[in-house]
Amino acid sequence: MGSEAARFAVEPAELVMTEHTVRAVDAELAELGGKVRKLGELCVTQVTEAIEALGEHDVPRAERVVAGDDRVDALHREIEDKAVGIVARRQPLARDLREIIGALRISNDLERIGELAENVARRAMLPGDKPRIGVMSQLERMAELALAQLRQVMVSYEAQDVAAAIAVWSNDEEIDALENSLFRELLTYMMENPRNVGFCTHLLLCSKNIERIGDHATNIAESVYYIVEGHQLSGQRPKASLIDAAGLTA
Amino acid sequence: MGSEAARFAVEPAELVMTEHTVRAVDAELAELGGKVRKLGELCVTQVTEAIEALGEHDVPRAERVVAGDDRVDALHREIEDKAVGIVARRQPLARDLREIIGALRISNDLERIGELAENVARRAMLPGDKPRIGVMSQLERMAELALAQLRQVMVSYEAQDVAAAIAVWSNDEEIDALENSLFRELLTYMMENPRNVGFCTHLLLCSKNIERIGDHATNIAESVYYIVEGHQLSGQRPKASLIDAAGLTA
Repeated sequence: MGSEAARFAVEPAELVMTEHTVRAVDAELAELGGKVRKLGELCVTQVTEAIEALGEHDVPRAERVVAGDDRVDALHREIEDKAVGIVARRQPLARDLREIIGALRISNDLERIGELAENVARRAMLPGDKPRIGVMSQLERMAELALAQLRQVMVSYEAQDVAAAIAVWSNDEEIDALENSLFRELLTYMMENPRNVGFCTHLLLCSKNIERIGDHATNIAESVYYIVEGHQLSGQRPKASLIDAAGLTA
Repeated sequence: MGSEAARFAVEPAELVMTEHTVRAVDAELAELGGKVRKLGELCVTQVTEAIEALGEHDVPRAERVVAGDDRVDALHREIEDKAVGIVARRQPLARDLREIIGALRISNDLERIGELAENVARRAMLPGDKPRIGVMSQLERMAELALAQLRQVMVSYEAQDVAAAIAVWSNDEEIDALENSLFRELLTYMMENPRNVGFCTHLLLCSKNIERIGDHATNIAESVYYIVEGHQLSGQRPKASLIDAAGLTA
């Protein structure tokens, strides 16, 4: 006890002040990060529920997803206000500042993911039969991949794990490939029978929405990289070409 | 001359310092705003060229749009780096800080608009005939409206004109209504003849891209409002319902 008291006694006042200040910023950044992770979890739920509502043609569940988007928007705004508040009060620098800019960016991507889930849910509410099994299972596979990307990138954000973020960033190809194959399949159904045109178009737009959820997950990976490394992730992400896929169908 | 010299002489040193500091921040904010406006102009050009390339089936022009997206991305990153740099060096508060956060948000929306223009241009590069006149003129009308929204919101940003921003924000309905009507028309062509399915699907996706350009213009309007007013624009934007439009086609 005596030696501890002595240690505190020799500590200069400025250092204690600095540590105090640092801890206050840290607490605010932790709160901000917590809100971003909460938004991430909410978006995972929204996407999961929207896809299940679509597959089961479950209108009440789709309605809950649509209503749930208000919570996504509210949390997104809360994060923006909190981030701006921290910058104004704490005048953070370097890594702290990047964490705030990163939180703003990630929250922006998550808000769009929420919007895409809402779009899918709205399509699940449309009158019509359950989509045919084969097509729906491909859409579900795409959604699983997109959700895995989203979950992994949020884990990389929590752990500030650059390697994990880069893995997500490089891993978007399979979703794109599935989207291309589903696109072609839906076009053949539309050509086969005019009665298929309506629901196939809706599924096609759903598959675009899911592909974009995957794109936003890779954007989030870029933000995690930026927070930790202090510069932008450059280079071309591997991506199945739109032209290659569309060449067959045009 | 003498009285001017006297005026400077009585000015306290701190005030001069403050004015000097304010002016330095102002210069940096002006530079940042200039870059955002430049990005806005670049995006207007990219969208215009992409739509013309699509209507004329002009592949070299479409290729220029695709290549031009690198400039959009580069300017977007420049704006982000500049914004973060100003926050770090100047520790801005209140309105200054909002201008920076607003610039980040607007630049983000513009970058997405650039990406949407690139998507349209890629579709213009696909093999196939010129789209039939009626459909194409509706698409061009949608694009004109979206471009008008984009131009007007960038004027409202330059002038920091909240009323003009709110006008853009409330004015998205016509684009949505046109998109709905085009959607239905394209579906009927697809049902009419399986040979139409391919190009109609591509035009349908182009019209979605143009609709999203309009959505981003309204997002930018929200950011202009936030910069000037200091809080988020709330309330429900008028929007033609997805369900109403899709009910007929499902």
